[in-house]
Amino acid sequence: FIFRVFLVGDQLSWSRRAAAEAEEVAAISCSGHGRVYLDSFRVDADKPPVCECYACFVGPDCSQTLTDCVADADGGNPLFLEPFWMRNAASSAVLTAGWHRLGYSFSDGSFISEELEKHIRQLHDIVGNAVTQGRYIIFGVGSTQLLNAAVHALSAQNSSSPANVVASIPYYPIYKQQTEFFRATDFNFGGDASLWRNNSDATTSLIEFVTSPNNPDGQLKEAVLHGPNVKYIYDRVYHWPHFTAISAQADDDLMLFSISKITGHGGSRFGWAVVKDENVFQRMTAYVSMNTMGVSRDTQLRTLQLIKVVLKDGGKEIFDFGYTTLRSRWEKLNETLSISKRFTLQEIGAQYCNFFNKIRGPSPAYAWLKCEREEDKDCYAVLKAAKILSRRGSLFGAEEQYVRLSLLKTQDDFDILVHRLKELISEGGAIPMAEM
Amino acid sequence: FIFRVFLVGDQLSWSRRAAAEAEEVAAISCSGHGRVYLDSFRVDADKPPVCECYACFVGPDCSQTLTDCVADADGGNPLFLEPFWMRNAASSAVLTAGWHRLGYSFSDGSFISEELEKHIRQLHDIVGNAVTQGRYIIFGVGSTQLLNAAVHALSAQNSSSPANVVASIPYYPIYKQQTEFFRATDFNFGGDASLWRNNSDATTSLIEFVTSPNNPDGQLKEAVLHGPNVKYIYDRVYHWPHFTAISAQADDDLMLFSISKITGHGGSRFGWAVVKDENVFQRMTAYVSMNTMGVSRDTQLRTLQLIKVVLKDGGKEIFDFGYTTLRSRWEKLNETLSISKRFTLQEIGAQYCNFFNKIRGPSPAYAWLKCEREEDKDCYAVLKAAKILSRRGSLFGAEEQYVRLSLLKTQDDFDILVHRLKELISEGGAIPMAEM
Repeated sequence: FIFRVFLVGDQLSWSRRAAAEAEEVAAISCSGHGRVYLDSFRVDADKPPVCECYACFVGPDCSQTLTDCVADADGGNPLFLEPFWMRNAASSAVLTAGWHRLGYSFSDGSFISEELEKHIRQLHDIVGNAVTQGRYIIFGVGSTQLLNAAVHALSAQNSSSPANVVASIPYYPIYKQQTEFFRATDFNFGGDASLWRNNSDATTSLIEFVTSPNNPDGQLKEAVLHGPNVKYIYDRVYHWPHFTAISAQADDDLMLFSISKITGHGGSRFGWAVVKDENVFQRMTAYVSMNTMGVSRDTQLRTLQLIKVVLKDGGKEIFDFGYTTLRSRWEKLNETLSISKRFTLQEIGAQYCNFFNKIRGPSPAYAWLKCEREEDKDCYAVLKAAKILSRRGSLFGAEEQYVRLSLLKTQDDFDILVHRLKELISEGGAIPMAEM
Repeated sequence: FIFRVFLVGDQLSWSRRAAAEAEEVAAISCSGHGRVYLDSFRVDADKPPVCECYACFVGPDCSQTLTDCVADADGGNPLFLEPFWMRNAASSAVLTAGWHRLGYSFSDGSFISEELEKHIRQLHDIVGNAVTQGRYIIFGVGSTQLLNAAVHALSAQNSSSPANVVASIPYYPIYKQQTEFFRATDFNFGGDASLWRNNSDATTSLIEFVTSPNNPDGQLKEAVLHGPNVKYIYDRVYHWPHFTAISAQADDDLMLFSISKITGHGGSRFGWAVVKDENVFQRMTAYVSMNTMGVSRDTQLRTLQLIKVVLKDGGKEIFDFGYTTLRSRWEKLNETLSISKRFTLQEIGAQYCNFFNKIRGPSPAYAWLKCEREEDKDCYAVLKAAKILSRRGSLFGAEEQYVRLSLLKTQDDFDILVHRLKELISEGGAIPMAEM
């Protein structure tokens, strides 16, 4: 039983082709305004893959600027962390052998990598953002899958009336969309949580989503409803030092996390739930099994390596980088908007962070922008006319005076957003892109 | 715009660590009776990962045989293809960079790799098992996710009565389990398809699962129901030359496939649907988006590489190997059982295969075993007493005289199964494992 094979000099055998191909593709220049991947489109099989340019850039190497383009601040693509992974290329790469985990189950019969679960618990320990000791962990295909798995698990079966799923406004749109989309007999969407505050009907069970920090506005929300008929799903995906001060270890009954908002790997579709109650754990596990037979083992392998990189210096590099990037974007956005009274942003205070051991200013994932002028009732339309794509307030259950702007995307995306906002505020019209 | 970076001699840079680590782990011996993976459990971070031994083998290098162990023929883990991937180590490895596809969407805004979709169409073309030209393709987290996505898409919303999901006995258990588990208002499980043959109620809509070749019995099923109220989901996951003669390109309205049953990568959770109708395509796409925001981009990248390996010789090597392996298992099993009248197997005829250009004998994925003795009404219990774990006939809607035995697992698993069957048939009791 010999572990260490000495790799004499530079000799690799079967892994060499994959390694060389990855380096070749990575060396293709997309001018810093795009990216090329191993599975980017190829004109034919013998040709190299083609650059995928970021919004507002075109050309074979993405070097041409589209002066007329729209600043897309709609989605939450967490590309702000890409530079961290390019800097940590060597430690974060994963080589997956062709025979890696063909089977459905791990050796304990589960769909969950024990090694990854152990590392997730370590991650929470070093960050100090959640209690995991004595808690169950369930993996999901993104926290997206776990939202509905949690609703399923907390709804009573065969109850006389379905559970009402609620959230306080403004709330993440998927809570409503998903609950309605699956059209299950055991739960309905019940709208704004505060409407149920004086509910005296003891037979109505309520499931409240509590998102803290909140998407869209970054506020540290607390539950609105209380009582024996209320159960909670704490969506904690933004409860990391990039986005908020860590003031305590969260210890809620059911908490959701997502790799997307820690390492930035939204495309990997990996999330987890931390759960106190064994019965809820079992029901959520059954949901994930019945729905997808667990989470891709390829993704579990990659996520393990990513978390190892985060852990190697106690999280210092990635959270410093993430915080510094978002903090500077937030300051820049505030500065840009401060010269006018037309738009306002949410207010978030400075707070002491146990992870950084200091008081830190706000660095939210999204701006929750309000159009203040009487005539700007449809804020989305106002921005759209100024070539800014935002997400409508009504999707979050809020008024149309509000929109969400994503601050999580590439630096190019953010710079173009600020540029378009400056143009809008100056009302003088276009400012050349070169000056942005 | 320079594509080819010359890798001088053996020089690799950032990819070297991952490649070397993969080779080190792959070089750990598990005696051919187990496997060790990059994410196998480690006693501590500085220790090498620990071998995961196949059933009936133990010890740090899996070299000790457990003489008393159970032959597990329950699950469908497609490990029979593992030797193919070990032989094709160099061409099948994938190195995933730390910055690979952080974002949620591909450059066309979808959750689907265009390059992978193109290769899937090529795969169907070279095998000749399905028409894909002019058809839509949807990716899912295994065909598992797509089963329910299809049921959702084919059920009318706001109909006066829910659709009945049916399948002819024996059927794959998940159809029933999933349909019941999600407790949707728009569909119910309606049981055996043939019970609905004389249904004259024009308001009852029916969704028939047609599995061909069938799980568990390998038969080429056809639809049982006909009429304007019937819609079909053709589960074609076994419609590949490993398992069945390819006599025509299937051209059903909605067909499901899974990488698990082509390349053996059950753990990767990747399946696809081929769909004619645009509205059904849109509804299934919406389901996958709402449920999981698509399929892991890590898995899409790996699947692309695996399909490239399959395609490189027109599928010859993998399908020859898969067919030869399963064909010899089927012959061995028939031979083993033929010395007694206690058990019988399903009968499948030889058939001309367009892919192999010859008549080929049966090579099913599963044995559908019947206990013939009057007193052996509970065939599962009969086998269990003989240390054989099967899957109960009742799960497939059939009688308990039937069980399913998986023939898809490792050669060790199959050999132990044959050994236990020989013991059972001889009724003389234990045969030493060394003689198996």
